[in-house]
Amino acid sequence: MKLQTDQIEVFFNPHSVAVVGASRNVNKAGHVIFKNFAENRARGIFKGSLYAINPNETEVLSYRCYPSLSRVIDPIEVVVVVVPSQFVPQVMREAAAKKVKAAVIISSGFREVGNIALEEEIKGIAQSANMRLLGPNCLGVYDSRTGVDMIFLPETKILQNGNEVVVTPRPMPGNLAIVTQSGAFGVAALDYLAGREMGVSKFVSFGNKADVNEPELLAYLMEDRETEVILLYAEGIAAGRKFLEIAKEVTKTKPIIALKTGKTSSGARAAVSHTGALSGTDKIYDGAFAQAGVIRARDMDDFFHIAKAFSTQPPPEGDGIAVLTDAGGPGVMAADECDTRGISIRKLSDVTLQKFEVLKDQQKIPKFAATLNPVDLTGSASSEMFELATKILLDDPDVHSLIVIGLHHVPGLDEDFVDRIANVTSQYRKPVVACDIGETEMAMYVRSRFEKMGIPSYSSPEDAARSLVALVRYGLYLKKEGCYDAYLANMTRKKTRGPK
Amino acid sequence: MKLQTDQIEVFFNPHSVAVVGASRNVNKAGHVIFKNFAENRARGIFKGSLYAINPNETEVLSYRCYPSLSRVIDPIEVVVVVVPSQFVPQVMREAAAKKVKAAVIISSGFREVGNIALEEEIKGIAQSANMRLLGPNCLGVYDSRTGVDMIFLPETKILQNGNEVVVTPRPMPGNLAIVTQSGAFGVAALDYLAGREMGVSKFVSFGNKADVNEPELLAYLMEDRETEVILLYAEGIAAGRKFLEIAKEVTKTKPIIALKTGKTSSGARAAVSHTGALSGTDKIYDGAFAQAGVIRARDMDDFFHIAKAFSTQPPPEGDGIAVLTDAGGPGVMAADECDTRGISIRKLSDVTLQKFEVLKDQQKIPKFAATLNPVDLTGSASSEMFELATKILLDDPDVHSLIVIGLHHVPGLDEDFVDRIANVTSQYRKPVVACDIGETEMAMYVRSRFEKMGIPSYSSPEDAARSLVALVRYGLYLKKEGCYDAYLANMTRKKTRGPK
Repeated sequence: MKLQTDQIEVFFNPHSVAVVGASRNVNKAGHVIFKNFAENRARGIFKGSLYAINPNETEVLSYRCYPSLSRVIDPIEVVVVVVPSQFVPQVMREAAAKKVKAAVIISSGFREVGNIALEEEIKGIAQSANMRLLGPNCLGVYDSRTGVDMIFLPETKILQNGNEVVVTPRPMPGNLAIVTQSGAFGVAALDYLAGREMGVSKFVSFGNKADVNEPELLAYLMEDRETEVILLYAEGIAAGRKFLEIAKEVTKTKPIIALKTGKTSSGARAAVSHTGALSGTDKIYDGAFAQAGVIRARDMDDFFHIAKAFSTQPPPEGDGIAVLTDAGGPGVMAADECDTRGISIRKLSDVTLQKFEVLKDQQKIPKFAATLNPVDLTGSASSEMFELATKILLDDPDVHSLIVIGLHHVPGLDEDFVDRIANVTSQYRKPVVACDIGETEMAMYVRSRFEKMGIPSYSSPEDAARSLVALVRYGLYLKKEGCYDAYLANMTRKKTRGPK
Repeated sequence: MKLQTDQIEVFFNPHSVAVVGASRNVNKAGHVIFKNFAENRARGIFKGSLYAINPNETEVLSYRCYPSLSRVIDPIEVVVVVVPSQFVPQVMREAAAKKVKAAVIISSGFREVGNIALEEEIKGIAQSANMRLLGPNCLGVYDSRTGVDMIFLPETKILQNGNEVVVTPRPMPGNLAIVTQSGAFGVAALDYLAGREMGVSKFVSFGNKADVNEPELLAYLMEDRETEVILLYAEGIAAGRKFLEIAKEVTKTKPIIALKTGKTSSGARAAVSHTGALSGTDKIYDGAFAQAGVIRARDMDDFFHIAKAFSTQPPPEGDGIAVLTDAGGPGVMAADECDTRGISIRKLSDVTLQKFEVLKDQQKIPKFAATLNPVDLTGSASSEMFELATKILLDDPDVHSLIVIGLHHVPGLDEDFVDRIANVTSQYRKPVVACDIGETEMAMYVRSRFEKMGIPSYSSPEDAARSLVALVRYGLYLKKEGCYDAYLANMTRKKTRGPK
């Protein structure tokens, strides 16, 4: 089942781009987009040729401005269109005549406001010219490595007091791809991911999807070497059957994490008035996603939390979860959440329990530490205890993954407990997630240090548990489909890979 | 139904306190606790007398140290006991002889580790002396106004590089009371609340609850003028019938938000090994809480998010929720979440829709703005549009509460939209919650500005929606119980109170 993914590649890595509607007016989308490309070109990130098209300008940011596409002599692979909707068909005809390979229509004013005929017109022009079309009514593409950046929302804003602040940052390069129906949500996602230092490979906002839609984008991302995890935001999914067929293929190689909204009658009505998409019955989506191995996030936070776990951790080989904690209550909370999500926390094996008894006899962990699972080192926990316990747990063949809850408030716990745990876990190919609660300097340090050491960390026990359970379920899915080993062999940058 | 709440008051506001086990060794709990009191006394916050008791010291922090309680001539109201468990009975006998009113046993090593006889012994001593007992195995009491602070976890820690950092902050004074079975979770909660600038009135960690338990604490807090919202963390609830009886009384005046863990078999086993508490069947708790008007949070984040909403917003008069947004997708997410939690988002009235049509005709909001509910101002939103739309929505008698989603990324939106919205909402007695997504400077500014203006704000649409739904449900409960009007009349510091 191959789609023509080479036709999609050009959107992300064109040799030449023309921005139709490029402008010197800083308040116009055509300015912001052109500036994105020009700056990335100056920095040597965007390596293609760049053309400004606008009959009312002669020069934009020191680039010559052409009155129309037809006046550019060199070939153009991609046009980004930011002119009012009524002018789009004319632009498309010129693009077709120039044998442009792909058009991104940023402009709105089409199907989403009832102008179905106009949308059909541009679609027809694209089809007969074998030109691929992204949009209309979209934010287009952002690629962190090729410097393609069509996002018209400016990175900074000037406040009323004259100060300039960052409003729409671009995340660093990374292995997460974002495919989003909602442009606004997409931009908010970039803001979130940049702030949380989660890296992005590619971003696509497809808007009304007159042509390019989810299945094709998924098929393309399946083959994209920079992408290891696919994040999909959708209100209604077009070509449902095709989508599921492709998704089932993709999830054998790369996880798809979906935030599908418009779930309820309230949300669905909102979705209809928003993009004109029909949300469909939610339970059907639930079942279909499960069958295709698509991981469904229950809300926005869950979406990003799961993404973080998948971006660095391998799915485990089985459903044995160990919880290691220095705080009883939060250990209970994590165990509860795993169980609520369908994976119960089993008692540890006798061999492992025996090892903990030996540590107790040697006074290396508190005599009253609970060890049945969760393993609770209690408020007497030290860095060394965490290190020893982590090793014992990961040595247990029935423990396939680990949740570490290290509340920094415990008096005898030095901050090196993070490094000690991470050094142990790096010797195993078992996924580990961490949690510390709080908003002090110290809590921030612990969480960010865990992440620097390659362990995703969370500010609540339930967030950590939910994210790990998603990994567990995906591991079970891969096993069932017989592609777990191939998946692991394929992983290129899972940070917890080790000799085992 | 009166419990002897005056017996409880002394724990929070004693005329005299003795710390038994006070120490000069900075690593000992007895040092930290004595220092808390001594410092708060020096600052003039703690106004009682303070005594250090320890046979091995002569002076602690410039206070004379007494070898035993019996050597103090003046009366002592409260003793805080931080000596090894085997010495506690002797201390309790001395306290009884001195007619101490209340004892807080911080020490562990009792029922939670199987020493049931030792716990029964101290309980017996307290009972026969008519002395109230908090603990053992607890963190005791923190009161932001009287300066009582028994938390033995030091506020700062010295890192291995010699730097001192804050690890266990105390939140500012506020209207939230925390009653927690887990000391570790309690401390983590203080850390969270301090970081989020949410104020706390009182904090009680009751540990093994040999004597003072949840019902009594609730009854006390019901009458506490500083407390407007009660946060309860519990793994298993003792005296269940009594608890529900009292809770039903309390919730007519003050909301109780409960995080009850040990919900599942995994969590319950963890809870048993943690505190020896039996978790009971979770569904029974669900039903009982609902009947008593206790708001049950589904996880830690939910617990704090709901608390934030209740700390400043009144419960609404009905279940009509309006969603106002500048981003379609997040609007759908909020509507979905309300519906999922059982409150559906209804279409707006014709009168209100007509008002929006007028605004469209006047070109004051975009022609294609969706207005059915959610009201979506689209990416063309401005501060003025938010202001106008907020007013129209709150003027609608069928709209009882409002979720405002203002994504700051929208190009034409000035940061004053927050103040404009807040100025409108302050004219109404309808609860409002806000959301902006992202982690940039600008997102932080928007959320914190909303909160400074008295509107709780959240980083995801679902968090905002869930918190508002909790308010809606509580409003419906108060109405059903016939105490809504009395509740509103009682509110002293709800920031959104206005003329209407």
